[in-house]
Amino acid sequence: MRNVVVTDPPRADGGDAETLGGFGVATVHEALGRVGYLGPEFRPAWAGARIGGTAVTVLCWPGDNLMIHAAVEQCREGDFLVVTTTSPCRDGLFGELFATALRHRGVRGLVTGTGVRDVAELRALGFPVWSAAVSAQGTVKATAGAVNVPVVLGGQVVRPGDAVLADDDGVLCVRREDVRSGLEAARARLEKEAAAREAFANGQLGLDRYGLRAKLEALGVRYLTADEYAKEQA
Amino acid sequence: MRNVVVTDPPRADGGDAETLGGFGVATVHEALGRVGYLGPEFRPAWAGARIGGTAVTVLCWPGDNLMIHAAVEQCREGDFLVVTTTSPCRDGLFGELFATALRHRGVRGLVTGTGVRDVAELRALGFPVWSAAVSAQGTVKATAGAVNVPVVLGGQVVRPGDAVLADDDGVLCVRREDVRSGLEAARARLEKEAAAREAFANGQLGLDRYGLRAKLEALGVRYLTADEYAKEQA
Amino acid sequence: MRNVVVTDPPRADGGDAETLGGFGVATVHEALGRVGYLGPEFRPAWAGARIGGTAVTVLCWPGDNLMIHAAVEQCREGDFLVVTTTSPCRDGLFGELFATALRHRGVRGLVTGTGVRDVAELRALGFPVWSAAVSAQGTVKATAGAVNVPVVLGGQVVRPGDAVLADDDGVLCVRREDVRSGLEAARARLEKEAAAREAFANGQLGLDRYGLRAKLEALGVRYLTADEYAKEQA
Amino acid sequence: MRNVVVTDPPRADGGDAETLGGFGVATVHEALGRVGYLGPEFRPAWAGARIGGTAVTVLCWPGDNLMIHAAVEQCREGDFLVVTTTSPCRDGLFGELFATALRHRGVRGLVTGTGVRDVAELRALGFPVWSAAVSAQGTVKATAGAVNVPVVLGGQVVRPGDAVLADDDGVLCVRREDVRSGLEAARARLEKEAAAREAFANGQLGLDRYGLRAKLEALGVRYLTADEYAKEQA
Amino acid sequence: MRNVVVTDPPRADGGDAETLGGFGVATVHEALGRVGYLGPEFRPAWAGARIGGTAVTVLCWPGDNLMIHAAVEQCREGDFLVVTTTSPCRDGLFGELFATALRHRGVRGLVTGTGVRDVAELRALGFPVWSAAVSAQGTVKATAGAVNVPVVLGGQVVRPGDAVLADDDGVLCVRREDVRSGLEAARARLEKEAAAREAFANGQLGLDRYGLRAKLEALGVRYLTADEYAKEQA
Amino acid sequence: MRNVVVTDPPRADGGDAETLGGFGVATVHEALGRVGYLGPEFRPAWAGARIGGTAVTVLCWPGDNLMIHAAVEQCREGDFLVVTTTSPCRDGLFGELFATALRHRGVRGLVTGTGVRDVAELRALGFPVWSAAVSAQGTVKATAGAVNVPVVLGGQVVRPGDAVLADDDGVLCVRREDVRSGLEAARARLEKEAAAREAFANGQLGLDRYGLRAKLEALGVRYLTADEYAKEQA
Repeated sequence: MRNVVVTDPPRADGGDAETLGGFGVATVHEALGRVGYLGPEFRPAWAGARIGGTAVTVLCWPGDNLMIHAAVEQCREGDFLVVTTTSPCRDGLFGELFATALRHRGVRGLVTGTGVRDVAELRALGFPVWSAAVSAQGTVKATAGAVNVPVVLGGQVVRPGDAVLADDDGVLCVRREDVRSGLEAARARLEKEAAAREAFANGQLGLDRYGLRAKLEALGVRYLTADEYAKEQA
Repeated sequence: MRNVVVTDPPRADGGDAETLGGFGVATVHEALGRVGYLGPEFRPAWAGARIGGTAVTVLCWPGDNLMIHAAVEQCREGDFLVVTTTSPCRDGLFGELFATALRHRGVRGLVTGTGVRDVAELRALGFPVWSAAVSAQGTVKATAGAVNVPVVLGGQVVRPGDAVLADDDGVLCVRREDVRSGLEAARARLEKEAAAREAFANGQLGLDRYGLRAKLEALGVRYLTADEYAKEQA
Repeated sequence: MRNVVVTDPPRADGGDAETLGGFGVATVHEALGRVGYLGPEFRPAWAGARIGGTAVTVLCWPGDNLMIHAAVEQCREGDFLVVTTTSPCRDGLFGELFATALRHRGVRGLVTGTGVRDVAELRALGFPVWSAAVSAQGTVKATAGAVNVPVVLGGQVVRPGDAVLADDDGVLCVRREDVRSGLEAARARLEKEAAAREAFANGQLGLDRYGLRAKLEALGVRYLTADEYAKEQA
Repeated sequence: MRNVVVTDPPRADGGDAETLGGFGVATVHEALGRVGYLGPEFRPAWAGARIGGTAVTVLCWPGDNLMIHAAVEQCREGDFLVVTTTSPCRDGLFGELFATALRHRGVRGLVTGTGVRDVAELRALGFPVWSAAVSAQGTVKATAGAVNVPVVLGGQVVRPGDAVLADDDGVLCVRREDVRSGLEAARARLEKEAAAREAFANGQLGLDRYGLRAKLEALGVRYLTADEYAKEQA
Repeated sequence: MRNVVVTDPPRADGGDAETLGGFGVATVHEALGRVGYLGPEFRPAWAGARIGGTAVTVLCWPGDNLMIHAAVEQCREGDFLVVTTTSPCRDGLFGELFATALRHRGVRGLVTGTGVRDVAELRALGFPVWSAAVSAQGTVKATAGAVNVPVVLGGQVVRPGDAVLADDDGVLCVRREDVRSGLEAARARLEKEAAAREAFANGQLGLDRYGLRAKLEALGVRYLTADEYAKEQA
Repeated sequence: MRNVVVTDPPRADGGDAETLGGFGVATVHEALGRVGYLGPEFRPAWAGARIGGTAVTVLCWPGDNLMIHAAVEQCREGDFLVVTTTSPCRDGLFGELFATALRHRGVRGLVTGTGVRDVAELRALGFPVWSAAVSAQGTVKATAGAVNVPVVLGGQVVRPGDAVLADDDGVLCVRREDVRSGLEAARARLEKEAAAREAFANGQLGLDRYGLRAKLEALGVRYLTADEYAKEQA
């Protein structure tokens, strides 16, 4: 691992990241071809936030939050702090004091593969965090790492400057290069979903809306009564 | 796996299922001899619902929600959709659009061994779901499965038409054949619990109420002071 | 395992335990040198409680809550019930009826390595519990265990009479011998955190506050522009 | 749970079960339409066995092996003992002494959702076991359960008398009703695999053998050079 | 955590520990009342060793093996090195070079809650290790810990000087104070097991040997034919 | 996800990858600065192989091995097949028939985040595989994916043409750009390890060899007798 702090990496437009975040993680994930989702392990410390920002990435040693301190200085308005460790760690590398410092700099939220602490205080502050655990376990500041290098979280590469979106469904990374086109795709998807919602509310079936009856038939799915099925099973 | 959709299976009475659900999962589980509980992995996407309905079962391929579309058509007033996959899968096979379609048909809720998404929207809709995960990960519609065949969820067999109950304690399956007698047993249990609650609130001990002092003695449990214990440990 | 109930063990002062609990788990954990935290597996059944009490410990057989009945009798005002099993078990060994009995005796809360049930009722009662799972799975009363012997929960030894603190960040055990000095250390830590909070809110960096720039340099961390980094990676 | 011992349930033919077992779990699983596999959690205590037998099923309370004693008496030549618990348990419910008793009765092996112990001795005996864990943790004989009722293991229903097959790939349950037809299907599959093996050894591609090039094209998979791909990613 | 190295703690007799180890983990665990077993997570890096020694304990920071170096100096003939971390860590804190140094000092083996590496080399050396993982992930030497203080591994307290036994069934800690009496109890247990083994090999049933028929009856277990059971289930 | 097969990506030199593999995963991991290790989840299906090759990468849909067929055609002498899925999946996507085809093409081994099957046959063939599970669960060929695009496995990015090394300690990815310099670094590390091995075998301590006594002192580690420690704890 190169022990570096990369300063001022190119970022996606902060306003675009925010707009994209407002569309919701599930919608954007679908709109962009189902890539970049960090998986179900990352849960919000408190429910109800829906945000988007630009990634500042941090790579820490397990049990050590030294590099988060280095990262804070690299953050600016509209950023989203993204923390991971060189090997799995659930300790509480992040809490209220960091949130206070980040809020001062206009950072919108945090996602970490580790634990977070001060959950009651973070909720009171309204500072949104997504993490793999809640843990009061404290850390040291003894070993170097990196800031603003590409990291892997939840099986996804997050590069500094990429857009990171998060809500109650989890966290999504959108490549910096895909944000602009993603806005358009997400808007189209929202319209498509709105139309489907109305149709379903009025009783249309997905089988009909998406033409799935032919698919089921092609796959050999048969319709049987309960009696017919029981006979086949005997 | 037989790729079938079984139509109109016999169901437990919907009103009975609802009444049973209202008694609460833990109480009915005790009343019925501690069988049918799907285990602690199934958590509500939002807290506070307490429902009961009749199972419509779905067996999907991992990463594929095609058969849920087929299942929606089989649902009717008072049903409870029960989804599993042929091998473990945490993807978000179910979300708001499905919930909208199910609500139109009078379906009371969903339980799935996979993930669900659109959690904020489901909460806003008031559509209750229990799942093993929250995940925005989208799915395809490419591989056949089955609807209304017996499935296994959380180590329990759920057959179409069985009663499924759920609340903040998790999900319980009651065999169709046992619903009627279960109502009676659950009512008796409720009364027993009410009496115990009052006694405990007034200071009675379970040791006395359940005659456990003799049991402890029979098992050889000894009462020691802290000093006596320290001496034995040395 | 010795099958014993130890009566009236020496306890930390109940008022001290309560005061310490009010300082919050993360703060006290730091103040006392980062020991005694039970880890991220122990989660509150409902959010928002922050308490401290004196441990009454219970060791049960898996799937069996007999010894909790024996333990209730040993509880008194200001206690915190601590339950574990001889091998891992997620069943619902504890629920509303026990909570009712404990509340009558002035017990402040419960932590268990097993599951708990009646979550909606516990929330309504305002009786706080921390557990490794929520489970409606019922238990038997067939096998002996122990009350008020040292137990291990979350990798930490909890002895009867130790102080147990809990909030949304999890559960912390403070040795009886360390409670008095812990009060002082926690108060000092609170002041230190308040000062840091104000400084961070005003834009100071941890790098400067904690003198970490020299540390980073000593560890060989280099600052690079994005271009310089890209060149090194090629 | 009904606390019963069901005596002498109808069994699949023991010779058929043995023959089927000899074909290997993966092959039979494919031949029978990919159903009945207990999943990757069940591992052999020692490598190299490949067997098949008829299920005698046991349902125990966690931490309790009483019902295995009742089950031994129900076992006869060609059986395969299948053990599970009412809730998850990794304790060592089974060891060398049971294996000695089972071997005397002609039982071919054991699968359990719990742990097993005496692994070195089982290997020396040549008695094959598949389990979810190895654990020396001992158990009590205090709580009732059932023998020869349908149980669920690894998400699969195993009924008494079903065929159970196991090798280094894990454990498969074949319904009693499907054993005879399964023999034929498995033989056909073996031939198909042998032909494929020879073709692949000689350089044929699955793409050609299974006609998958058209499938890839229909799914829109494009072939690009590394340069073309890099350009698209930019 | 106190950062200390405790020198020359009192130890159980090394010969006794070795003898006890030779009896096997499962047997001694039973003989001593089923306490002290570290659970199924601790697996041998290679199969077939069966040893016993006296604990030298090490508490490391996650991702850091500094204190193992301090511990080596504290080891002497007949010791068993016991390593854990302040929070969970699967990194490879231990490998061949440490094993070489320990072997020179007459250390019999190692157990760690972390990972180990150089598995092929450890097998070739014949140096037995039990661990929660195999991992090549390297570590730093940056943060203090402790040597020869009581530690918790697998839910069990291990104090310096206690006897630690290990074989293919896992790892057992026997309190220093219980080793001498344990020898006697284990010998008695071995004789009991030998007698049972012979009886079972000759066809006796545990039901009869342990008087369990009365137990089953007292617990209300009923014997039914398959037909009777089917009728009850309908 | 772009559904593409990238043909003939630039590869590290096959001979270099093989040489590097022969040095062992743990040694190369240390030599290259402790990066690229896939973690302890990836275990060999059989013990004793130690190899290195050039990555051909495959991204499959869960429960679907279509793209492995496409990947086989892209493989050539000296390659190492690297398989992952878009979301976690333990099914048996790979077995003996694929191994036969790969061996014909000179492929050295496979690593997959899924399961593998035909373990006995793979061992007999001597074809080495590393996987997150062993599973007989079969798959379909219904959904598109990608070949020779960068993938993430065990938290590490693997790009086509990178060197992949594997032995009993797990799997390591070395960036194509770092292979040549890695050879040199690994040779230097081997020499350093050989010297340390000899010193340790002759009784030198790591404390002295690595100058750690000063470190311990700087960190405030104190040496106490057991009596002194007991007194401090009281």
